[in-house]
Amino acid sequence: MSSDKQNNVKEMARQNGIVQPLLTDFYQITMAYAYWKSGKVNDTAVFDLFFRTNPFHGEFTIFAGLEECLKFLENFYYSDSDIEYLKQTLPATVEYEFYDYLKDLTCKDIKLSAIEEGSVVFPRVPLLRVEGPLIIAQLLETTLLTLVNFASLMATNAARYRMFAGKNVSLLEFGLRRAQGPDGGLSASKYSYIGGFDGTSNVLAGKMFNIPVKGTHAHSFVTSFSTLDDIHSVSLRHADCSRQCDFLKMVLESRERISEILDVSPDEASDGELAALISYAQAFPSGFMALVDTYDVKRYNIQGLFRHGRHANGHSGYNSNCGSNGRSIRNISSIRSACGYSTFERTLRSGLLNFCAVAIALNECGYRAVGIRIDSGDLAYLSVLARETFKRVAEKFDLPWFAKLTIVASNDINEETILSLHEQGHSIDCFGIGTHLVTCQRQPALGCVYKLVEINGQPRIKLSQDVGKVTIPGNKEAYRLFGADGHALIDLLQRSSEPAPEVGQKVLCRHPFQESKRAYVIPSKVEHLYKVYWNEGRICTAPKPLAEVRDRVQSSLKTLRQDIKRSLNPTPYKVAVSDNLYNFIHDLWLQNAPIGELF
Amino acid sequence: MSSDKQNNVKEMARQNGIVQPLLTDFYQITMAYAYWKSGKVNDTAVFDLFFRTNPFHGEFTIFAGLEECLKFLENFYYSDSDIEYLKQTLPATVEYEFYDYLKDLTCKDIKLSAIEEGSVVFPRVPLLRVEGPLIIAQLLETTLLTLVNFASLMATNAARYRMFAGKNVSLLEFGLRRAQGPDGGLSASKYSYIGGFDGTSNVLAGKMFNIPVKGTHAHSFVTSFSTLDDIHSVSLRHADCSRQCDFLKMVLESRERISEILDVSPDEASDGELAALISYAQAFPSGFMALVDTYDVKRYNIQGLFRHGRHANGHSGYNSNCGSNGRSIRNISSIRSACGYSTFERTLRSGLLNFCAVAIALNECGYRAVGIRIDSGDLAYLSVLARETFKRVAEKFDLPWFAKLTIVASNDINEETILSLHEQGHSIDCFGIGTHLVTCQRQPALGCVYKLVEINGQPRIKLSQDVGKVTIPGNKEAYRLFGADGHALIDLLQRSSEPAPEVGQKVLCRHPFQESKRAYVIPSKVEHLYKVYWNEGRICTAPKPLAEVRDRVQSSLKTLRQDIKRSLNPTPYKVAVSDNLYNFIHDLWLQNAPIGELF
Repeated sequence: MSSDKQNNVKEMARQNGIVQPLLTDFYQITMAYAYWKSGKVNDTAVFDLFFRTNPFHGEFTIFAGLEECLKFLENFYYSDSDIEYLKQTLPATVEYEFYDYLKDLTCKDIKLSAIEEGSVVFPRVPLLRVEGPLIIAQLLETTLLTLVNFASLMATNAARYRMFAGKNVSLLEFGLRRAQGPDGGLSASKYSYIGGFDGTSNVLAGKMFNIPVKGTHAHSFVTSFSTLDDIHSVSLRHADCSRQCDFLKMVLESRERISEILDVSPDEASDGELAALISYAQAFPSGFMALVDTYDVKRYNIQGLFRHGRHANGHSGYNSNCGSNGRSIRNISSIRSACGYSTFERTLRSGLLNFCAVAIALNECGYRAVGIRIDSGDLAYLSVLARETFKRVAEKFDLPWFAKLTIVASNDINEETILSLHEQGHSIDCFGIGTHLVTCQRQPALGCVYKLVEINGQPRIKLSQDVGKVTIPGNKEAYRLFGADGHALIDLLQRSSEPAPEVGQKVLCRHPFQESKRAYVIPSKVEHLYKVYWNEGRICTAPKPLAEVRDRVQSSLKTLRQDIKRSLNPTPYKVAVSDNLYNFIHDLWLQNAPIGELF
Repeated sequence: MSSDKQNNVKEMARQNGIVQPLLTDFYQITMAYAYWKSGKVNDTAVFDLFFRTNPFHGEFTIFAGLEECLKFLENFYYSDSDIEYLKQTLPATVEYEFYDYLKDLTCKDIKLSAIEEGSVVFPRVPLLRVEGPLIIAQLLETTLLTLVNFASLMATNAARYRMFAGKNVSLLEFGLRRAQGPDGGLSASKYSYIGGFDGTSNVLAGKMFNIPVKGTHAHSFVTSFSTLDDIHSVSLRHADCSRQCDFLKMVLESRERISEILDVSPDEASDGELAALISYAQAFPSGFMALVDTYDVKRYNIQGLFRHGRHANGHSGYNSNCGSNGRSIRNISSIRSACGYSTFERTLRSGLLNFCAVAIALNECGYRAVGIRIDSGDLAYLSVLARETFKRVAEKFDLPWFAKLTIVASNDINEETILSLHEQGHSIDCFGIGTHLVTCQRQPALGCVYKLVEINGQPRIKLSQDVGKVTIPGNKEAYRLFGADGHALIDLLQRSSEPAPEVGQKVLCRHPFQESKRAYVIPSKVEHLYKVYWNEGRICTAPKPLAEVRDRVQSSLKTLRQDIKRSLNPTPYKVAVSDNLYNFIHDLWLQNAPIGELF
């Protein structure tokens, strides 16, 4: 194949994505030229990619994005149009031989070591170590940071939700519409799945990453039906045979029976809503999951709003939309007595009655309904109300499974809401989480940096008055030391030339900067944190598939003590350096001290 | 061409992007099937896309993302692999004819009206109005929201930075590494340019959108040089002729002269830094812009940190990295006297001396340096210090332009930093802004929603106890009414059947929900806010090119009164409904009131 043709094929392949060498900061290119021009083509360097602070006021981070980094290395080349663009953009004084140099650049001389994707990681411990030609290693900086920063932030955010929600609750990612761009949405789906979510509403993410996709219908579906006349067909085929059931009739009959059980008049329920639910059940008889808060909450509200001048007994101003602010369930009874029991109970009256009517009729046709979604109001209270309703119907109809119908909640939920709901008590089986999850609202960026730590075999230290910003110089290895109970005790950075710590042998672990802080540790297990993933122009350790990375997150989190993972005032996990590395750092520091100046 | 071939061509074209029909919530597809199954294929609907609250505690928003919405409509079709995926994902009970229906779906029957991209917009006024078949219009929801939400949020964020920075300051977007994914970074570059930024560091954004790209070098470039021996070539070709200058000698000579002027010993400056700056200048003699804070600040810090035990006079704990927290320049003199003048002045001593030496030597070779970048420390103070230095050198060398060298600042800058720096006084010409800009840290999501307002000619109203969530029903037009002084007075929503307001004629403008709030307005100018952009399967109004959208942002913002735009407690801009629409809303509201229930 001619070189032109090869380039065409490559350019077409690249159109799959925007992760390419030009997805970088311009100064990487100008530096590359300055390095090239000053004869540094054969200089070799080591860069560490790491972060300095865990996100979300937590004490751990999940490392993610490695697979995408490897794909980036694999496809790293400047296309003809890239070179053309750079020629137009860099000054005319740039020598043409530089473009020839760029044209031939690949990552064949780069060696990339990394921690396993999905692992819990901590400040200062490099997630990636990039070794190779200075110019190429420098050119990778921005893209690697972009790929690791958001992926790790999202995976961490999702893992926190997973942890605080507990094992018995499903978590769905519902955030595409609020994500930071289409790809922000896709990344959010992918990395929240890795972090422990059970599925996403994002269909493309489902297709691309083989993630379970979930979803029911919107309020607009319900409001698009006005009356029972809007129902297209009254029938439904029975599950077990080809017999057509008169579904509408069955629903209306079951609504009569249930309205007695629930002590609600069928007149109180919206027929438009019933028409919508019937239509939805006809479309998905085996997967009937219905949104039940379209009408009742709203009806109640309309009155409160519209007849504003006519009553001043206080409850029109009561905001039942405040489930997410942590109001405890104890308050409900006081509101109930202030408003009158029946007024308050009206919440979900239409939706629950209609849902139960359709679900019972479905059962008579041989199908089991799945459950309901609540998207507004006091989620703790409403979920308990719905569960009580399901139990009552289950008992009356002698259908034990009915008591266990799934209750999904999905209104502006964040980490605090979940903790507060747990505190209050609720009957929610599944949370659908959007904005707070996908934009990482509490902290929308992770601050990974990429620092030069060695050049031509000579260590480099970045000094700063802010000790947190001092880099740990030289080519290093990282080990995780475990105690006898299986918990991770400490991460230890050593110079690459040092022998690995050994099980059962005491190891001196030192604080990297504070002379007085040191301790001996006798590990029961030692895990070498780095594997070489890329070397000699190819992936040499295959990144794990998504499902295994997802498992890795949970197994890795299990090795952390509970107090490190808790929401409030978690204990910091310790990262240490070996005695050898400590002395190495501080000798270098002294060498860099200025001459003849007083401090 | 056969249909298969056509599909192949289409699938290849699509690989350019991930904006495609499956980039949506699964419930859009399940609803589509339920609509299809219940005979609603020919139902027509009107949806409004709007937001309820301006972001960033402000009182305006910039509308952006329209061009991408139009591209989405243009390329809307389900590919064979999409259909295959949906068949696997939807229940087996879904009828096969539905997939045939999806296969033929396009946006040919959709009509999209929109406000001009780049306009200032306000809560409740629809940004997009989508009319057409219910199923298709519903299927567009999530993707349109994704495309408008982040684009508008970013453009608004950038426009706010532009406004608060003032006209005389350049703004560069430097945020790729902290963006929410690769495409989050690209969108940030694009929409911050639209919002008024002058350029980006993101090279791919430059290539794709023709945005100016900017950048210099990183600290790692400086630290990769250790001594003057690291310089590859001592010479530089003179700008005006082919004569080779002994550039190193010229730099060292000028450093001697400047060190006298600045009263700094050349020994105090780092030779590694000088080697780096010389190399960079040789690479970019006409574009010499240097990072000048690699060494001095750090040296100062090292001492403070490292000899911690040996002094307790207070200044070792002084954090000069706090430029962003608003400390006023008045404090500097007190710190100066506490620390001793010379100690404090050491900040930037190495960098400024080395920069000036290289810049003067460049001048002797016929090139003008561009300026410096400061990436740490007290930006107000350091920029003033740098400016004073440049002025002193300008005077001594009789080079007036030297006093006006560009000073770029770039350390974790946000809206508050800029306001605080302005308050303190500074000499910064250009801000490079990253994380806070590109992730919209203050508010990382805009809450646009997409609501059904009409079905088969019948209005739909979404009622909520939270009056802010009540939708304004029906097919509407929006007008902006201007006063005699050219300022926008109010946005007015009317029913589409009403005649447009006329210049010089009084118009009754009503608060949409509060009976008592109403006023007559006599507009001097009336702007109809909507144009039809998509109709009969094609773009019928071409979206404006990026540069014009960018101009539109500034001209549109100019029509807003200053008090609406200010940072602190801005005045809300008013959005009203016509008397006709008011009555229409409230009649509908009454019709939806429940029967037989007390409030």
